[in-house]
Amino acid sequence: MKLKKFDGMNCSLAQALDVIGERWTLLILRDVFLGIRRFDQIQADLGIARNILTERLSRLVEEGILQKQHTQGARFEYVLTDKGRDLRTVMLSITHWGDKHHANPKGDRLTFVEVSTGEPIAPMAVRARDGRILGPDDVKAKRGPGMTESSD
Amino acid sequence: MKLKKFDGMNCSLAQALDVIGERWTLLILRDVFLGIRRFDQIQADLGIARNILTERLSRLVEEGILQKQHTQGARFEYVLTDKGRDLRTVMLSITHWGDKHHANPKGDRLTFVEVSTGEPIAPMAVRARDGRILGPDDVKAKRGPGMTESSD
Repeated sequence: MKLKKFDGMNCSLAQALDVIGERWTLLILRDVFLGIRRFDQIQADLGIARNILTERLSRLVEEGILQKQHTQGARFEYVLTDKGRDLRTVMLSITHWGDKHHANPKGDRLTFVEVSTGEPIAPMAVRARDGRILGPDDVKAKRGPGMTESSD
Repeated sequence: MKLKKFDGMNCSLAQALDVIGERWTLLILRDVFLGIRRFDQIQADLGIARNILTERLSRLVEEGILQKQHTQGARFEYVLTDKGRDLRTVMLSITHWGDKHHANPKGDRLTFVEVSTGEPIAPMAVRARDGRILGPDDVKAKRGPGMTESSD
């Protein structure tokens, strides 16, 4: 089935989803973020078909989100590039939303803590430049230079 | 094709993706966030097949992310619940990542500003409880009470 691609839309969300919105992609990235970096490890962890995993990993390498890094022997593993590491905010926002609205009754599954203090990080929030947390009614969207009438 | 469901995984990211990770869902929510709330408006804006839009909207209502609100005549529109509004952090994290890594050369497409000041909001960031921005190496994952060996 030929799916409509989102990358023709002049929208940063659509552009991003074209790259990271495919089924499995964020779960693969979760594994890499958590240190599961070899093909066979990811495959076993997720129970994903090998051909799908191959395809998703190739796309992530092509998009500059992951890179292959050689380890001992003929082996290699997948590591995040800077562009990939920048997805931390996406991963944590989704995870915090899941923690809050689809919780495990026993408590958080994973907590994310600051290495130096051991304290949990702040819940992901929308903030002003000075750090104040902003509520849903405090923010509005404004058309920027990348969205003119002609390219909308 | 029967797709593997993610909601059996004991992972908040997987649980969330089971609900919001389907193709189109986040773009539909983007429209509602931006004030495009009626079925026909969303359909025209996205160019999505009507049966897919119907299915996605039903799921979002069922999951308590959107609710139907009657307007004049027999019409109704879709509005966000509190659970839906909590997806702002997800939407904005993805959008900021798209702004940065898949930019329109002319500049940002949409900028998000604080209503009271007109100033752009802060880029979405991972922060400590006191508001300090944390880098990739400053944070680690720790198993919480919801992830015991037996339920892992």
